[in-house]
Amino acid sequence: MKSVTVHTAATLSNLCCGFDILGMALQQPYDIITINETEGTEISIKHLDNYGLTTDPKQNIAGVVLEAMRSYLKSTQGFEIIIEKKIKPGSGIGSSAASAAGVAVAANAILQANFTQQQLVEFAMEGEVLASGSRHADNLAPCIYGGLVLIRDTPSLDIIAIDTPELYITIVHPQIEIKTSYARSILPKELPLKTAITQWANVAGLVTGFMQHDYSLISRSLKDVVAEPVRSPLIPGFNEVRERSMQVGALGGGISGSGPSLFMLSQTAEIASLVEKEMQSIYEKLGVEYKTYVTTIAKHGVRIV
Amino acid sequence: MKSVTVHTAATLSNLCCGFDILGMALQQPYDIITINETEGTEISIKHLDNYGLTTDPKQNIAGVVLEAMRSYLKSTQGFEIIIEKKIKPGSGIGSSAASAAGVAVAANAILQANFTQQQLVEFAMEGEVLASGSRHADNLAPCIYGGLVLIRDTPSLDIIAIDTPELYITIVHPQIEIKTSYARSILPKELPLKTAITQWANVAGLVTGFMQHDYSLISRSLKDVVAEPVRSPLIPGFNEVRERSMQVGALGGGISGSGPSLFMLSQTAEIASLVEKEMQSIYEKLGVEYKTYVTTIAKHGVRIV
Repeated sequence: MKSVTVHTAATLSNLCCGFDILGMALQQPYDIITINETEGTEISIKHLDNYGLTTDPKQNIAGVVLEAMRSYLKSTQGFEIIIEKKIKPGSGIGSSAASAAGVAVAANAILQANFTQQQLVEFAMEGEVLASGSRHADNLAPCIYGGLVLIRDTPSLDIIAIDTPELYITIVHPQIEIKTSYARSILPKELPLKTAITQWANVAGLVTGFMQHDYSLISRSLKDVVAEPVRSPLIPGFNEVRERSMQVGALGGGISGSGPSLFMLSQTAEIASLVEKEMQSIYEKLGVEYKTYVTTIAKHGVRIV
Repeated sequence: MKSVTVHTAATLSNLCCGFDILGMALQQPYDIITINETEGTEISIKHLDNYGLTTDPKQNIAGVVLEAMRSYLKSTQGFEIIIEKKIKPGSGIGSSAASAAGVAVAANAILQANFTQQQLVEFAMEGEVLASGSRHADNLAPCIYGGLVLIRDTPSLDIIAIDTPELYITIVHPQIEIKTSYARSILPKELPLKTAITQWANVAGLVTGFMQHDYSLISRSLKDVVAEPVRSPLIPGFNEVRERSMQVGALGGGISGSGPSLFMLSQTAEIASLVEKEMQSIYEKLGVEYKTYVTTIAKHGVRIV
């Protein structure tokens, strides 16, 4: 009976101006997912964490993705999925995407299916639809491809890997709840043309900054005039985190996905640590439970171990 | 008495999805501008073309730019500006920008002022303001810098040069008049968020395609869901030009600036010539006067000869 274990990591989506189209794979934190072949035809799910996620394979993201792949391949092989989530659900750093992508990659290996990365994103999307009701790939694609990716077109899954310089990412997850559906509902339905132009000028600047390894340009372009103005008030400490992170040398940052996690990019590990200290001090003072991470870009996607 | 002559070329602005933020310098067509030092303190203007542009230095783009620079330098040196325009005013390929940028570069040389390219754009902007009433640099910046440029931020003139692969550009100028002010007035004041996201996904794709020398990605990204839907109906033959250009192998294209010129990008000189033939046949049939050009990207900006 075969068995495959993967590490499947957190991801940053949006990256300020890259709303709905950019995502970045992180080294930390990551979930550990094992798929074991079993006798019979059932899919069963076991959690090694305390997040209380469902073990019903028809309701669980990992179960749904595995079933979609099995069904596509007309396989009736039974499986046990063992999930140890370290990425807290609802944190805004791609927890559901990590489950969906991790299972897709693990199943691809155990079923010897040879799906392309793009096909794996397509299967994993079934899990994202279950989780959020919408087909989006800005966490899934970086989770599977690794690095920084652009999703130029979601329906056709036109996914483009973009080179980056060395970067350090500091994340703080204030332990408050923001429902993705609510964070979506408060977005403006329409944008003034001028605002939209500002956003796409910064997107072009950000992508160029990454590819040219131009830290200053990355810093100047890390602006979001669309989602941040309406979402940042939901996150206590937002302004202070950015201000104080910039003061200690961060390049910039903002809300990860639809929050509540915040991220800051830095050019050196030293600055990323200083940023973490600022974040800690801010949330200690605010009396808000939090968790911080200092990490780097994961060059590769979900890793079979 | 010193004398400087420059060649100052046409430019493509917008490049479909890069509305208001991208511009590209062309090899052809170009204006020839000479500045001669004269006795006295006057600025006089002479035209070697038949476009009937004003020779009043306070109303003429070239005169205004030269006066701005002279005034900044507290110089009272007299000059004669001789302009031979080959870029027809109102064609949508940066005719006014070529005058403004050409004079700025020529004056910088003759006044031995050592202004940076960014400062030259700033001075030349005086001419664009006179011509169109708005401060925009998406023709000026490529005209002065050469190549493909991103104007990330207009107020601070954050101008970034972007690498490109070899490309051939076919332009057709149907000899109809579209006032820039009218072309601006019909733009939507607000965009649905979804439309804006589509535009910035394509901008990111286009910039990435240029930098990665990925012709297919350039082709997939050359889309404009903002200005083209409202402006293209003003230009007879628009749909046919695009359809037939694509059929003979063009990568894509659209309206140059606010029109009426149309541009198509191609990977080879052969395809660019086929595109020209299609354009010619379309406007012959429509009975609309036109002019076509097949050219390449000018790697350098205004050239002192």
